[in-house]
Amino acid sequence: MTLELLKDIGEQGLLERLQPFCPPGIVGDDGAVIPPPESGQSLVITTDVLVNGVHFSDRYGGVSQCTTSPEDAGWRAAAANLSDLAAMGASPLGITVGLSLTGDVPVSWVERLYQGMTQCLNQYNTPIVGGDICRSPVIAIAITAFGQVYPDQAIRRTGAKVGDAIVVTGVHGASRAGLELLLKPDFGKHLSPEERLSLIKAHQRPKPRLDVIALLSLQVNRLKLESSNLQLSIAGMDSSDGLADAIVQICRASGVGAEIDSNRITLPPSLSKLVSREQALDWALYGGEDFELVLCLPTEAAEELVAQLGEGAAVIGKITSGNQVWLKDKTGTYADQLLSLNKGFQHF
Amino acid sequence: MTLELLKDIGEQGLLERLQPFCPPGIVGDDGAVIPPPESGQSLVITTDVLVNGVHFSDRYGGVSQCTTSPEDAGWRAAAANLSDLAAMGASPLGITVGLSLTGDVPVSWVERLYQGMTQCLNQYNTPIVGGDICRSPVIAIAITAFGQVYPDQAIRRTGAKVGDAIVVTGVHGASRAGLELLLKPDFGKHLSPEERLSLIKAHQRPKPRLDVIALLSLQVNRLKLESSNLQLSIAGMDSSDGLADAIVQICRASGVGAEIDSNRITLPPSLSKLVSREQALDWALYGGEDFELVLCLPTEAAEELVAQLGEGAAVIGKITSGNQVWLKDKTGTYADQLLSLNKGFQHF
Repeated sequence: MTLELLKDIGEQGLLERLQPFCPPGIVGDDGAVIPPPESGQSLVITTDVLVNGVHFSDRYGGVSQCTTSPEDAGWRAAAANLSDLAAMGASPLGITVGLSLTGDVPVSWVERLYQGMTQCLNQYNTPIVGGDICRSPVIAIAITAFGQVYPDQAIRRTGAKVGDAIVVTGVHGASRAGLELLLKPDFGKHLSPEERLSLIKAHQRPKPRLDVIALLSLQVNRLKLESSNLQLSIAGMDSSDGLADAIVQICRASGVGAEIDSNRITLPPSLSKLVSREQALDWALYGGEDFELVLCLPTEAAEELVAQLGEGAAVIGKITSGNQVWLKDKTGTYADQLLSLNKGFQHF
Repeated sequence: MTLELLKDIGEQGLLERLQPFCPPGIVGDDGAVIPPPESGQSLVITTDVLVNGVHFSDRYGGVSQCTTSPEDAGWRAAAANLSDLAAMGASPLGITVGLSLTGDVPVSWVERLYQGMTQCLNQYNTPIVGGDICRSPVIAIAITAFGQVYPDQAIRRTGAKVGDAIVVTGVHGASRAGLELLLKPDFGKHLSPEERLSLIKAHQRPKPRLDVIALLSLQVNRLKLESSNLQLSIAGMDSSDGLADAIVQICRASGVGAEIDSNRITLPPSLSKLVSREQALDWALYGGEDFELVLCLPTEAAEELVAQLGEGAAVIGKITSGNQVWLKDKTGTYADQLLSLNKGFQHF
């Protein structure tokens, strides 16, 4: 049996195969007409480009590159964009997908990519409402996600205030650990199958924290009821480029500093069986792709949120004056560190 | 003086250079928060991916490839997306730009690309509200444009009715002729400089017909005032993939046929000095990238629209029952032709 390639069925052929992944009636025009945000809400737009060999690999099953199946690549692409919406405090309305494809890509690869994308999107009732396919020497996926947010509930990097508590919505370092387990099959043999799978899933199927946005919205509305003058202003972003990057970016945008207690950063429990405390912390700070949210808000609201979020969520430090971001070890075992953007991921 | 390359200034450096092309306050978060469509209007989304070597070339100034400067590539990318909005009857709200770039691309190339994009966008008061930059082995531009339309004024490919007049909003074949003049400098030496420039501009700086949408909207509103029950339903799309493709796509989506009078298809007047009538008609039908609109609407409304649009606009035929699209020459010089999608541009 020969593998059916994209060049065998052509652009129209592929479009017909992908149509089942989109809501009926949407595809087939120059654009999609969809309902606007609900009354009073603003539109939120975010866009991401993922390139084969940089962000994922189509060589699934090869010896050296077996970390991302097409389904996982699709899930991760969708999750990254939904996470950007969550990072803005927005709930999703839909996404568009622009695919650059080589002629020799198997049709099944593209279908599996879309399967992974829709598996993720379906968890959040988000449709694919448009797209474009074009020929290219390299496979790339360009996703634009759009959502809605009440203007006073939008989360921005600016606006962190001195004294704010810094919240993480879950554990960090799991995605990087999962990648390591995939790259080095002999690594972590002493983990239980459940522990292993949990870290690998964190890498392959990260969950955008749209659930946090729903909780925050309830909290904001309750505060409004209790005291009509009180407005809960939240600064933040997601930790897709690493926890350190998120904290430093927020501080830079807000013109403030921060003090982080390294012992309060929540790590996956199994990480201590896998690597040293220093390595685990390095993965948490710089590994990236955990897709948690890093939020700065008044202490009382922060503690309430952490209690609601449960496992993994924590207040890890506070916003300070100045512009330095310190990572402190209150046990005195490690020296204090100044965090900067330099160690984070930079293209080019 | 050495040319500054992207890898010299990095991702953050480039983002700082591109910030002036975006409205203040938009850039710097995971997404952009923008005003929603006006009350009662739906959201329209369209997306397009353009790849170096397929849709444009970065080798400007080279011997064989000198048709598209970075400014022109930017203009054309923006225009193609705005034209998709016009094709839906929508007016633009903004675009996002996802750039895939190689490390050795000159920074000036990217800046000039953005200059061209914003030159086009500024004509239609459309901001760049977001973007992403990533490293890739090939330069590509993924644009998502979003706009607004009253649901009853949305233009779709479905809905063309037997008896409808088929309108083109301007001349066809100019873009293809302009490309020919750029590829073959000796070609068309007997054209006046103005004629030459006009064809070349049609290729390098095509104009999305958002002006037509404004006119149609006035026409629809006037009809509503005159007769509260009358609704003007318009089917259509843009002619970016050629006039023949547009007519056939509309007929296929609407389950109808069409009869086109080849002598009514408006061509740039100078084309007759350049090539044979047959060649000119071929460029008009299959050349593509004229970015005019092809609209199907009742005869009276069609004639009113054509009169308002002036030069180049014409009723070129009518929608018929059945499913065949005939190109007829009423002078009897050429044989009737059956139009199909096959001759149009297909990726892969």
